[in-house]
Amino acid sequence: MQYKLAFIGFGNVARSLAKLLVRKQDVLKSKHDVTFLFTGISTGSHGFAVNPNGLDIQKALELVESKQSISSLSKVEVKNSLDVINNSEADVMFENSPVNTQTGQPALDHIRTALNLGMHAITANKGPVVHGYRELTALAKSKGRTFRHESTVLGGAPVFSVMREAFPLADLISFKGIFNATTNVILSRMENGEAYEDAVKYAQSIGLAETDPTNDVDGWDAAIKVAALVTVLWDTPMTPQQVNPTGIRGITSEMISKAKAENKRYKLVCSAEKIGDKVQASVSPQLVDSTSPLYGMMNSSTGITFRTDVILDYSITLSEKPGMQGGPEETAYGLFADFVNLVK
Amino acid sequence: MQYKLAFIGFGNVARSLAKLLVRKQDVLKSKHDVTFLFTGISTGSHGFAVNPNGLDIQKALELVESKQSISSLSKVEVKNSLDVINNSEADVMFENSPVNTQTGQPALDHIRTALNLGMHAITANKGPVVHGYRELTALAKSKGRTFRHESTVLGGAPVFSVMREAFPLADLISFKGIFNATTNVILSRMENGEAYEDAVKYAQSIGLAETDPTNDVDGWDAAIKVAALVTVLWDTPMTPQQVNPTGIRGITSEMISKAKAENKRYKLVCSAEKIGDKVQASVSPQLVDSTSPLYGMMNSSTGITFRTDVILDYSITLSEKPGMQGGPEETAYGLFADFVNLVK
Repeated sequence: MQYKLAFIGFGNVARSLAKLLVRKQDVLKSKHDVTFLFTGISTGSHGFAVNPNGLDIQKALELVESKQSISSLSKVEVKNSLDVINNSEADVMFENSPVNTQTGQPALDHIRTALNLGMHAITANKGPVVHGYRELTALAKSKGRTFRHESTVLGGAPVFSVMREAFPLADLISFKGIFNATTNVILSRMENGEAYEDAVKYAQSIGLAETDPTNDVDGWDAAIKVAALVTVLWDTPMTPQQVNPTGIRGITSEMISKAKAENKRYKLVCSAEKIGDKVQASVSPQLVDSTSPLYGMMNSSTGITFRTDVILDYSITLSEKPGMQGGPEETAYGLFADFVNLVK
Repeated sequence: MQYKLAFIGFGNVARSLAKLLVRKQDVLKSKHDVTFLFTGISTGSHGFAVNPNGLDIQKALELVESKQSISSLSKVEVKNSLDVINNSEADVMFENSPVNTQTGQPALDHIRTALNLGMHAITANKGPVVHGYRELTALAKSKGRTFRHESTVLGGAPVFSVMREAFPLADLISFKGIFNATTNVILSRMENGEAYEDAVKYAQSIGLAETDPTNDVDGWDAAIKVAALVTVLWDTPMTPQQVNPTGIRGITSEMISKAKAENKRYKLVCSAEKIGDKVQASVSPQLVDSTSPLYGMMNSSTGITFRTDVILDYSITLSEKPGMQGGPEETAYGLFADFVNLVK
């Protein structure tokens, strides 16, 4: 079967996804008899394009990567993301617009629109998960479609699909993990004697931290990931504000040296536990010792330990990638995996 | 739908599975509309029982756990495992007879018989995986049934289902892991100064190592798990003999002390890599340093790191269970998960 695809957001992750789809097109065809066309693209600052008969994806990639507009490729007049969704005739919409942790917009509206038009919706955006999971899941179900979001927590490393497919009928008791790579890099470098400010600058220099590192160092990125996991895995709505994170600004070099002398480490620990009908969640710097699965996660490594009623402590770790920035290619795979699992 | 279940082998793992099925029967019914009957049981030394209308499982458990025969429960005259399979009218056969690493028998014949009768076959037994994966998978397919074996590698912790369901169309490049808990306990205790012989005795005292520890310490248990992973994940038949393991008998306390002084550890490392059309696999003691995901796996912890073309290094760790023997309950969950994934 042929699938028409709309891309809302065409940054690093979305472009990596487009390239991955092209790279895997032969195996998609041979293993699952799936082919695809790119019928709509909405970029942040390089225009919009729709062609229900298929856009030239190589041309679109070239234009955006040389900072030119893709509007010339369009066969339909489209002026914004909703126009693209409405005119793309897509079967699947990939939502990769910038994250808004406060409201989940405009991603929420993109996904609502796509589902209402009978498209599957797949996102790497944490906003609509924490601000609309129940609504979007119910809407998708009512339309016989699916809303998926594998790439929202550990980059594109499988987490949601593992709990969904590999842990059937297990009761999740708690989870604990390291979800924010930037703060983990900063704490790792401080352990090697670097000052906080220099470690932040390093994280910015490799493209991991943003110019304003607040979202990472104050724990908000970690908190929205905790909220997304709690919202989905326990079907219990939670916002980052409810997680109320404590970041790493209070951790001094002296504290890290003292911990090191005791074979301990500060980590920005994300955790949640179901107690009765309630979920208690937190993000805060904690001392961990070498018996913890989190102790060995250094630099840009991230990971999570699940405790269930059937398998006690099961950990997933995404290791740091020597010589790689990590990031877009792996996040793109999570979106790709969601797509394959929908259409296979 | 109601499923009739046959249990071939009724040791710790199979009995834990029976109890888990009973514990989860309400959620199986409410979430998947699945009910079940136990219609056949074959034990190693407590007889055989078949009743196509359902055996009293509590009674069967009580009898076996008080070392009495279950034959009195049978409504059909059955004298061996094949009789049980043939007369059980089962929809699903759980194969948990003792492992035979050399031939895979008698598990192979049990599974062939069950599949030929139109049953699904689920096993925790590594023998039929390394000695019959292609044949059994093809036979299952020809009958519209499925052969599953989640519990063969990391106890019941999801590994095969993660690669199958959560890594669609990923190319596996290599894996590396610690698969044998007994040797990991021995090496961990030697690092704390215990002599090899005392560490072996400890592993035996907690029920982890057998009276003759050869299968563990010479690497054969690890090798058959490597062979099972290679056979399934790359669809490339491999036997433990081809893995040709080196065990831990050559690792002295002196070597471990020297490694410790350099912040390194000996681990019985299991690895395999695809190079062109060939797979190179090995089991041998190796020095690992603290940058390795294997370094932190102490005592009875086991785990695996997968390297794929889409997600670089993705690790799964099953942590040691303080105050628990580990083992049968978790292994039982792997069988249960295979069952739920077949019938949901």
